[in-house]
Amino acid sequence: MDFFRTIPLKAFGAYPIVRIVDVPAVVHNYELFRQKVSKTNTICAAVLKGNVHGARMELIGPALYETGCRHFFIEEVCEGIELRKILPFHDAKIYAMAGLLEGEELYFSRYHITPCLNCIEQIKRWNVHCKTAGRQSAVIHLDTHMNRIGLLDEEVDQLSSQYGELTSYFDVELYMSHFYDIKGDNPVHCYEQLKVLQGYLAKLPKHPVSFACTDSTILLDNSTFNFDMVRIGIGLVGGAPNRDHPVDSSAKGAIEIYTKISQIKSVKKGQTVGYGGSYTAKRDIKIALAHIGYKDGYLRSLSETDSTHVGAYMWIGGYPAWIVGKISLGMTTIDVTDIPEKVLQKYHYAEVTGPNMDIKKLADISGCYELLASLGRQNIKVADYTMEELNSLT
Amino acid sequence: MDFFRTIPLKAFGAYPIVRIVDVPAVVHNYELFRQKVSKTNTICAAVLKGNVHGARMELIGPALYETGCRHFFIEEVCEGIELRKILPFHDAKIYAMAGLLEGEELYFSRYHITPCLNCIEQIKRWNVHCKTAGRQSAVIHLDTHMNRIGLLDEEVDQLSSQYGELTSYFDVELYMSHFYDIKGDNPVHCYEQLKVLQGYLAKLPKHPVSFACTDSTILLDNSTFNFDMVRIGIGLVGGAPNRDHPVDSSAKGAIEIYTKISQIKSVKKGQTVGYGGSYTAKRDIKIALAHIGYKDGYLRSLSETDSTHVGAYMWIGGYPAWIVGKISLGMTTIDVTDIPEKVLQKYHYAEVTGPNMDIKKLADISGCYELLASLGRQNIKVADYTMEELNSLT
Repeated sequence: MDFFRTIPLKAFGAYPIVRIVDVPAVVHNYELFRQKVSKTNTICAAVLKGNVHGARMELIGPALYETGCRHFFIEEVCEGIELRKILPFHDAKIYAMAGLLEGEELYFSRYHITPCLNCIEQIKRWNVHCKTAGRQSAVIHLDTHMNRIGLLDEEVDQLSSQYGELTSYFDVELYMSHFYDIKGDNPVHCYEQLKVLQGYLAKLPKHPVSFACTDSTILLDNSTFNFDMVRIGIGLVGGAPNRDHPVDSSAKGAIEIYTKISQIKSVKKGQTVGYGGSYTAKRDIKIALAHIGYKDGYLRSLSETDSTHVGAYMWIGGYPAWIVGKISLGMTTIDVTDIPEKVLQKYHYAEVTGPNMDIKKLADISGCYELLASLGRQNIKVADYTMEELNSLT
Repeated sequence: MDFFRTIPLKAFGAYPIVRIVDVPAVVHNYELFRQKVSKTNTICAAVLKGNVHGARMELIGPALYETGCRHFFIEEVCEGIELRKILPFHDAKIYAMAGLLEGEELYFSRYHITPCLNCIEQIKRWNVHCKTAGRQSAVIHLDTHMNRIGLLDEEVDQLSSQYGELTSYFDVELYMSHFYDIKGDNPVHCYEQLKVLQGYLAKLPKHPVSFACTDSTILLDNSTFNFDMVRIGIGLVGGAPNRDHPVDSSAKGAIEIYTKISQIKSVKKGQTVGYGGSYTAKRDIKIALAHIGYKDGYLRSLSETDSTHVGAYMWIGGYPAWIVGKISLGMTTIDVTDIPEKVLQKYHYAEVTGPNMDIKKLADISGCYELLASLGRQNIKVADYTMEELNSLT
């Protein structure tokens, strides 16, 4: 693509990194998913955990609410508390997937957050709490042999046999589960999990079910897997777990990150670049510093060394700038040898992710979710803008 | 070690993670370094970049100032602005190692921050700025063939030949450089860099020099490498780049991290745990969820799978709890099979780093600085305490 975004110097101010969130693009992506699942009459919930990978709950929460989304998942109750302040509406449902940790009952009640109970102990604790605090609802998380979070085999049997007693003071709103192996081409494990889920459901009183999330909504047979609710996460910001399987050709990238560059200089063939001397220049090269590093979540696994070719690059005015040498705490050395002088003089920044470096591609290079979560975290170095705010600057 | 810290439930509140910073321990560590370099009459500067790996500038800055530290390094000017608000004292010197990025001149002047100029272009820009804004100082960063940041060969020659003109309106306070290969046992590259540095210095007017930082202060010959100032970073919080080379047997770990655990359940031999089914239980095991994951900086490289043994564990009341399966966004599955039931019932949390999991060990397992920087970043999930604050709770 030939488009390279103009970021005025004043947008950076004292910050080396600019992040732009395109809120209408997130809404657009959400609506693509909603349309996709409307055929099965399935609720389309939004997963806003991890601050929506840097797109920020305070922007995305209200925008999705406006477009009709009413079911929001976050991970821990502390995230839920923040989201509740953003969406203080009675009909905005907030679910905490990490479950009801010891001592958290009061926070769930106070902020009207629904726990996804993941073991008998939590079910018992919620029931005791609701006995005195008043009737509330809960999701029950079933572990369909992912063996991570949720009630597994014997616990499902126990819930089944003592269901009335265990849930006497609260309402089960939903059963949920999660796929563990959806990234490949072979969905055999998903069908095995489906079978486990059906076995569980046969033992329990009937309630709505949520199984699929972004991955599975894209990759699996909707009529079989959608059930009553799907949960959309990374797809909101234009990510897909598989680059080869975007949600839809019209899905949009919603986050762009740019970093200032400085200090263009020559390194001679045979010299090494950066920590450990792990990258050797294969010819006389010109390098520049890009002011994003692993403290900013730009993971070291993106580093190109003599022994590892990863193929990660930034983008400067129509040209790729390959990462060379180990990524430092706050900076990355990039190869700008083949970028014309006038382009380097014109721009003082590089695109880290955006129109020319799709977040899915960057994620594929470096372990999908981990990179996105890292880059998305709060960061003292980042000047944050919505696309509207940025456009009003230029 | 048998000590396992008591963290009351109320310390967690709505947060799954508690982080404790031992400020006196940081001061103690700083004083160990200062004593070490006093033999060469060398200034002991403190590097507070990356929010001191979670120890927080607002705690560490004033404490070190009180103990006599007057020279503080951070990375970008935005970090410097934060530190200046914390240390608004005329004699607290703040140096920004990332250099003078395009358009940042005014911020450096306004907040009285000294740029570490890393190329001729920055030197020229600072000189032009100081011509109108008034005389200020700067550090000149020399690249002693690390080929990352600083003036390299030809640029040093240019500085040498045009020194008077290039620096006519500002004072050069210091030359600095940095080692690129200090972690191994063989300091040969350090001596090569020293030779390069000496070559540079011979061409330039005499000013004080800073070369060594935590690593080198520990590992290298002080009388040769200390010069006029050393810069202490990871050593402040008890880290050392090499586990086998602590600063001193009395150096103290200054950061402890604890995370809540939940949902203890049984997984049968042969079943897989977590995403991708990448870990297979070798016997019937009991697992628990620890509520820290890669969105919190607990990097996926700590994950134990069938194909990788990394040996990372958490610690619960006298027992290790090994990480099994891929680390998730917000949680980690740990093996608690061999931990007595009464211990698990007593504690609702695990030590991630602290007296039983030295931060150096954790760093060694998973790529030293990256993990510490990740865990140290701002995090909505963390309840932060000083050791004093925590003790007043118990």
